[in-house]
Amino acid sequence: MNFDQLWADLHPIGRSADSGGYHRFSWTGADAEARAWFTEAATARGLDTRTDRNGNLWAWWGSPGPGAVATGSHLDSVPDGGAFDGPLGVACALAAVDELRSRGFSPARPLAIGVFVEEEGGRFGVPCVGSRLMAGEIDPERVRGLTDASGLTWAEAMAAAGPDPEMIGPDPDTLGLFDVFVELHVEQGRALEDTEHPVGVAGSLWPHGRWRMDLRGRADHAGTTRTIDRADPMVPLAHAVLAARAAAEQHNARATVAKAHITPNGTNAIPSLVSTWLDARAADRETLEAVVEQVRKATEQAAHDHGVGLTIDAESFTPLVEFSHDLRDHLAEIVANRMPETAGPVPILPTGAGHDAGVMSGHVPTAMLYVRNPTGVSHSPEEWARPEDCRAGMLALADVLQDLLSRSGREDFR
Amino acid sequence: MNFDQLWADLHPIGRSADSGGYHRFSWTGADAEARAWFTEAATARGLDTRTDRNGNLWAWWGSPGPGAVATGSHLDSVPDGGAFDGPLGVACALAAVDELRSRGFSPARPLAIGVFVEEEGGRFGVPCVGSRLMAGEIDPERVRGLTDASGLTWAEAMAAAGPDPEMIGPDPDTLGLFDVFVELHVEQGRALEDTEHPVGVAGSLWPHGRWRMDLRGRADHAGTTRTIDRADPMVPLAHAVLAARAAAEQHNARATVAKAHITPNGTNAIPSLVSTWLDARAADRETLEAVVEQVRKATEQAAHDHGVGLTIDAESFTPLVEFSHDLRDHLAEIVANRMPETAGPVPILPTGAGHDAGVMSGHVPTAMLYVRNPTGVSHSPEEWARPEDCRAGMLALADVLQDLLSRSGREDFR
Repeated sequence: MNFDQLWADLHPIGRSADSGGYHRFSWTGADAEARAWFTEAATARGLDTRTDRNGNLWAWWGSPGPGAVATGSHLDSVPDGGAFDGPLGVACALAAVDELRSRGFSPARPLAIGVFVEEEGGRFGVPCVGSRLMAGEIDPERVRGLTDASGLTWAEAMAAAGPDPEMIGPDPDTLGLFDVFVELHVEQGRALEDTEHPVGVAGSLWPHGRWRMDLRGRADHAGTTRTIDRADPMVPLAHAVLAARAAAEQHNARATVAKAHITPNGTNAIPSLVSTWLDARAADRETLEAVVEQVRKATEQAAHDHGVGLTIDAESFTPLVEFSHDLRDHLAEIVANRMPETAGPVPILPTGAGHDAGVMSGHVPTAMLYVRNPTGVSHSPEEWARPEDCRAGMLALADVLQDLLSRSGREDFR
Repeated sequence: MNFDQLWADLHPIGRSADSGGYHRFSWTGADAEARAWFTEAATARGLDTRTDRNGNLWAWWGSPGPGAVATGSHLDSVPDGGAFDGPLGVACALAAVDELRSRGFSPARPLAIGVFVEEEGGRFGVPCVGSRLMAGEIDPERVRGLTDASGLTWAEAMAAAGPDPEMIGPDPDTLGLFDVFVELHVEQGRALEDTEHPVGVAGSLWPHGRWRMDLRGRADHAGTTRTIDRADPMVPLAHAVLAARAAAEQHNARATVAKAHITPNGTNAIPSLVSTWLDARAADRETLEAVVEQVRKATEQAAHDHGVGLTIDAESFTPLVEFSHDLRDHLAEIVANRMPETAGPVPILPTGAGHDAGVMSGHVPTAMLYVRNPTGVSHSPEEWARPEDCRAGMLALADVLQDLLSRSGREDFR
């Protein structure tokens, strides 16, 4: 099975020997290796590979041109992330081409397999940068100025890796070639595990966003400064962590404070600055706003009580994504046809995760396939999917692509 | 005044252009520059400079030998620290030699000016490493294995800087040369500011220590994992921060959680590990133990409630230091003689800060002079002392050294 070889080749790239987790950050050496893996695999299949103005990679089966079917995902990871989130969709797409060829299938229109840049925001803090740039949903000037943990800008990092950062921006010439986009992804929850279905179809993506909170205190000696004389930003940080958890519980949402930069981060030095991030998601916008407001109020109150300055900045926000119902139902039917003996309808799953497919859905009829995750764990070295489920996902994707590629014109999916 | 030139030469070394704070970490390039500054200043004064087996520097006025008077301090800083904590004592000692020579004074016994390695623990987490090694109060094997934030060991860092890490350990040959030790230091509080005194004398050093807490959670996707399914180590971290503050208030002590390493520290990744440090200090050991116990219990309870593992490790502990009363009172008399018109007795000040003088006091009659700090701010770019107060401190140190160096034999200070 070609998927196994693709997977084995990709496996060591950016993998930590200690944790087994992945550190594939945009424009790093590991990223370059992962991109080379994709280009080599595509070239070996006789696919023409191009880099668009934003650094996204596209491998074409058939002549690049309008009316194309697009699939793919991303190869970057969160810090110490799992092997499947992103790469599974790319490897399955390449293997699906092998599968369709082995069936003797000839596409009636071209297929593009994409690798989007910086989906996770693991290096520069903002997710789905590659797809947002292409779709004109983020200011290229803002992207060029994004900084990583060591202060390097996107422009510097991208230029060092090769592509010209002055070129980034809206790309209707590429986006306009696609009639439909389908992304296969590992499930990031365990809804499928409770069913007999190895493959599900995406329902909606919850509205979600990231808020940066800068807490400015007063640097001082932790051994000598009296408690009442302190302006310690760690205290409102603690309140933010607890408020996020309480708000998530109360509203059946997700709210997380999992990242903080503490300056100077010394045992005996009261910090001058704590920068921290709230990640929040909910089934609808009103609930999300209530969650964020609750965390904001608690953090503001604690900052005020402790003489700490606070600025809050919405770094990214993605509204509710409802994928095309026509396309979703069509995919569910194709997946069901592959496993006619499986009990119950193919699950349609909402999720709190964001995806490039969410960005694409604003511009092109878009759908997602999910591959079962037995533990639901994701963004972790323990993230996993059974080999037989990966194969089922790849075959389902091949069926979907075969269906879409056998139609000659623009389809009527909304 | 020679002090001004010394100070101006040292000023730019390891200074951040952004904050104006100092990053002088042991065995880094900035540390090498600061050590070179000391060696050059000593050599320019005709002082013989030696490096002891632990990397501490000693500049000798007169032939190195037993019965010596020792003074000095350290040149390393906390992250983004101030200019005065450490360097003031070293620069004043060098300038005091100039002052005594300009008085035509000839010492009856040798003077050694020391620069201790890693006083702050800013890089390797454990304070007063240079003096503790010399005094045989810390295991050299443990020191060699200490790691910095990037995982580099003390042994690797020291070897890269030059000195042989295999040589470190107890050094009675050096320590045995000293009859008395006096360290001048900027005050880390504002007790002197409320008096007319630019210079005070140390009373006691509070017992103090550092406890490392490792909180082990389960890495997971922050956007998809339900709140009840999480094992999020940020939650017990928050409880530790708040418990430290509450315990310090309740016991009129100091307790601070100002440092944390979050793994992986991604916006949308529930951490697998949070390592954090408690810095705690109190006027007596019983109070300190009560404070630490209170923080331990609160953190343990929160870790237990949230399915998070917790290990606590005492990284360093320094018992109460009562400096020699004879020597302290003698110094106060000398300081008072310099400023006969100043109202009130020379202040004798207890402090929550630790010093190499605290380690030395277990082996040699030891005293400290404090120079007034108008804001009390320390371990911060805002740390400051007035130039006229620095000069007063240098002259007081010169008077003290003149007195001690004019005695020919071992004095009876206890």
